[in-house]
Amino acid sequence: MPQYNPPLRDMQFVLHELLHAVDELKRLPPHADLDEDTVNAVLEEGGRFAAEVIAPLNLSGDSEGCRLDVATHAVTPPKGFKQAYETYVAGGWPALSCDPAHGGQGLPLLVNQFFYEMLNGANQAWTMYPGLSHGAYEALHAHGTESQKRLYLPKLTSGEWTGTMCLTEPHCGTDLGLLRTKAQPLADGSYAITGQKIFISAGEHDLAANIVHLVLARLPDAPAGSKGISLFVVPKFVVKDDGSLGARNGIFCSALEHKMGIHGNATCQMVLEEAVGTLVGEPHKGLQAMFVMMNAARLGVGNQSLGLTEVAYQNAVAYARERLQMRALSGPKAPDKPADPILVHPDVRKMLLTARAYAEGGRALSAYVALQLDKSLASSDAAERQACEAEVALLTPIIKAFLTDNGWIATSHCMQVFGGHGYIHEWGMEQFVRDARINMIYEGTNTVQSLDLLGRKVLANNGATLKAFGKKIAAFVEEEGVDEAMQEFVNPLADLGDKVTKLTTELGMKAFQNPDEVGAAAVDYLRVVGHLSFAYFFARMAKVALQKQASGDPFYTAKLATARFYFAKLLPETAGLIRSCRTGLQPLMAMDENLF
Amino acid sequence: MPQYNPPLRDMQFVLHELLHAVDELKRLPPHADLDEDTVNAVLEEGGRFAAEVIAPLNLSGDSEGCRLDVATHAVTPPKGFKQAYETYVAGGWPALSCDPAHGGQGLPLLVNQFFYEMLNGANQAWTMYPGLSHGAYEALHAHGTESQKRLYLPKLTSGEWTGTMCLTEPHCGTDLGLLRTKAQPLADGSYAITGQKIFISAGEHDLAANIVHLVLARLPDAPAGSKGISLFVVPKFVVKDDGSLGARNGIFCSALEHKMGIHGNATCQMVLEEAVGTLVGEPHKGLQAMFVMMNAARLGVGNQSLGLTEVAYQNAVAYARERLQMRALSGPKAPDKPADPILVHPDVRKMLLTARAYAEGGRALSAYVALQLDKSLASSDAAERQACEAEVALLTPIIKAFLTDNGWIATSHCMQVFGGHGYIHEWGMEQFVRDARINMIYEGTNTVQSLDLLGRKVLANNGATLKAFGKKIAAFVEEEGVDEAMQEFVNPLADLGDKVTKLTTELGMKAFQNPDEVGAAAVDYLRVVGHLSFAYFFARMAKVALQKQASGDPFYTAKLATARFYFAKLLPETAGLIRSCRTGLQPLMAMDENLF
Repeated sequence: MPQYNPPLRDMQFVLHELLHAVDELKRLPPHADLDEDTVNAVLEEGGRFAAEVIAPLNLSGDSEGCRLDVATHAVTPPKGFKQAYETYVAGGWPALSCDPAHGGQGLPLLVNQFFYEMLNGANQAWTMYPGLSHGAYEALHAHGTESQKRLYLPKLTSGEWTGTMCLTEPHCGTDLGLLRTKAQPLADGSYAITGQKIFISAGEHDLAANIVHLVLARLPDAPAGSKGISLFVVPKFVVKDDGSLGARNGIFCSALEHKMGIHGNATCQMVLEEAVGTLVGEPHKGLQAMFVMMNAARLGVGNQSLGLTEVAYQNAVAYARERLQMRALSGPKAPDKPADPILVHPDVRKMLLTARAYAEGGRALSAYVALQLDKSLASSDAAERQACEAEVALLTPIIKAFLTDNGWIATSHCMQVFGGHGYIHEWGMEQFVRDARINMIYEGTNTVQSLDLLGRKVLANNGATLKAFGKKIAAFVEEEGVDEAMQEFVNPLADLGDKVTKLTTELGMKAFQNPDEVGAAAVDYLRVVGHLSFAYFFARMAKVALQKQASGDPFYTAKLATARFYFAKLLPETAGLIRSCRTGLQPLMAMDENLF
Repeated sequence: MPQYNPPLRDMQFVLHELLHAVDELKRLPPHADLDEDTVNAVLEEGGRFAAEVIAPLNLSGDSEGCRLDVATHAVTPPKGFKQAYETYVAGGWPALSCDPAHGGQGLPLLVNQFFYEMLNGANQAWTMYPGLSHGAYEALHAHGTESQKRLYLPKLTSGEWTGTMCLTEPHCGTDLGLLRTKAQPLADGSYAITGQKIFISAGEHDLAANIVHLVLARLPDAPAGSKGISLFVVPKFVVKDDGSLGARNGIFCSALEHKMGIHGNATCQMVLEEAVGTLVGEPHKGLQAMFVMMNAARLGVGNQSLGLTEVAYQNAVAYARERLQMRALSGPKAPDKPADPILVHPDVRKMLLTARAYAEGGRALSAYVALQLDKSLASSDAAERQACEAEVALLTPIIKAFLTDNGWIATSHCMQVFGGHGYIHEWGMEQFVRDARINMIYEGTNTVQSLDLLGRKVLANNGATLKAFGKKIAAFVEEEGVDEAMQEFVNPLADLGDKVTKLTTELGMKAFQNPDEVGAAAVDYLRVVGHLSFAYFFARMAKVALQKQASGDPFYTAKLATARFYFAKLLPETAGLIRSCRTGLQPLMAMDENLF
């Protein structure tokens, strides 16, 4: 069975040595009293929960899956999930970065980001039960009425209740403008909601006393399309004004999906039959309110694959040290043994280092974005808030798509290190691959992310946000370019930066003539900009490592080796991507649709 | 549930218009009477069997899996598999390309290649039951005694019995030199074989009256390592000299593996307890004999992924035509509908065309290799036999690794076209992905293939075989370079050919200094040479299509569009691969093994 070791040392490196995050955070009024020791202690304790409580349930949860009792609509998650959730709630973990006004501990989102990386690495399917609550919490926190906040936020914060996002319907996923669920106003100001939702993660279970569904539906007078969608909060059990639970509401799980992975999480088809809900935010403006949940969820999905990349790497390394097979081509390395450990073989190392570099690059980028998010929420400087918000918006689709594509590559490589054993369930490696696959799809497919990046975040404002991020890279290049030791990192970074600038301009001009050019280029483009951001953070990490190498701590030697591997073996992918990108739309549209 | 449509038109194109295969085959004495109509009729009938008999069992076979009765060691495959096998045997299909001396129909391997592509596309798990027989047939045909041939070949040819390859043991897969199974000589010249084997596909089942296991084991006087391994034939039921079945032999299935995919095939742990077998070929030379099976099996594995690529493509296209979601960025294309079919979106087309190009390129390359294999076996010209054999040896690892890596990419893309529905079992798309994953592992991992290509097939003879293949490409470039219409294909082909020549020379020099350089470069290198071979065949296909375009048959228009897509969007990958390759070994070995 796979093991999970919380990567605390690397997290501390990113927090304290790369980002100097506590200093940055202390500038923000809500985090003025933060200190490194607290952050480290929280992560250490959180890592222990991940490794000791939920990691041991990952493989068994996959084998067992969830059960639906069709008579009662009750869903039972795999054995041990409920007890683990009780431990989680008892430990106060749901409240970590929630608002103290509603019982939260008010820690930065950055700390929660690292905590969730560990939960996801230990058990993605389990983590989705509490994980979905965040979206509901954030939507109500941002758009709820005082009454909604009072009734729901404390229980979501404590974890007594969990949340869901009910968006997708059988005929619409990406295109929510097509949705059909209806909300009928009732005399008391609430609404009776009727319709069918699918793919609702954690839609029904017995882990919590209540489930708070955030549901998209149409009011009777709603305009057609995406401008006629409203957001409602629909609890599994009606919540009385004193906060106690009332009647079972008309929202039921009618079926569980049989999926490729995340078997331990209940993916529900939900039927709403005059379920009573209240409006969140303004009528017909549900999609905007929903995007509060969605952006958090997209960062969360990138974090899921980051966790899987790390755990797959750890277990593949352990196997590669133990498994004896063949001799190194350059001669025996363990002559006392019947064969060499497969870690001596260059391609095994290449697969492992690919996963390692994707984990370390992804961790640095995600942490940076979480820090910007904290600043965007809590800086006392409005201009800083706005700049950080724009940067988070730019990097969110990259985290969602680049980290999940990388997670798919990395988990598959790590499985490959196991040879035939990787294909066998009991080793746990193939589960990481199956679990990682959903992350490229849900919360907006990776194609949708790429359109969001190139269309909305880059071209729509003439590249202004990208330029601002590019300026940070240019400043770093300018500063470090004089340091001979840094040139191996800075030169390819600068080169790729120039290429991205040129490519962006080209694509802008093409898109001006035909908007479909955006769709043709977007997926390649996102991967190129993803590499640019990884190259930037690997160069910055290399700088820190070079400075501290003299300490003799082999951590820095390893960090440098990973950075060099990244620049040598992974960054070159951009050469092919840019070429493919520049061939444009025509090769895709030339085929008549009847000829496919 | 997915549908399977035999791609007969494209097969006929490759056979008759690209390769002029029947003319080529008629030059070979055993195939002097072959004609196009016979070939077409066989494929049409074979396609019907694939589509109508076994395709409907694919999804249910995956859900149901195989059952082992631990008391009796009996294994029951999924419902319908046995009846389908009976139909297969009654139709005479196992005999298609077997030797008429043993009851075979003597058709070219090329025909069998296409037939098996269809079987694999329809149901890979089912196809592995008869598919494994081929290896046993070929090993006995090439190395068996007259008595072994007489006892086993007619029943393997008719399909009354099936075969297996029992190589892997728990502690050794790639490194068969470590194997421990023992063969003790008996007084009558046979052997008592004892040991444990794992990952034995179709190791036990009730489809056939007997199972012919080809087993690697060590004789008592065997030298250590790979030079001490012998090959034995060990039937499930002892075969008496009159061909009738005797006692149950001491070879049993002790457990079934729980796998990521190919659930319908029984992957068995086999225990041998003084199982009686006879020696195949010479003592201690089992690995050479085994490689007869292995090379055929490697081509077969590439063919599995080719089948999956095609079926995934077909079903994703059907979905992309029907699923309405969003409007094209350039404005509505189906204004009468609530949204446009997703086939209008450029990236959906890119995912589909990637699968299509990998299927068409893979089909052309595989067919070419099968034709060379037929020539290597049956040409009356010894020099031609030898040249063809060398070319098959060169291209076999490319077919195994390049086609299976492509199959993984293609099935995953096709699943992605389905959005969330792709992750759900009932749509069948995620099964293609799970099934495709094993093809990158078994019969020698793709890393092993790449070492075989670069180390053994290219560098070991100073690139002579590669140069011979390169000469064919150069001759084509020379001939077509004067045709203006062909330049868009010929120029990038010539360019890549030059780059491969240069890269090969560089790698040869590096490997001379440090053999581990081969391991560092091999995987990237194989993919580059894979693209070179695809580019060659796409250019040749484009030539045919340009010549026949005037006929008005839209098949040629589509072929040209696919070729142009391939050159624009897929070939550019080589730019990054070559760069990565050239950075060599150092970035992989710099990390101390303790620091991983």
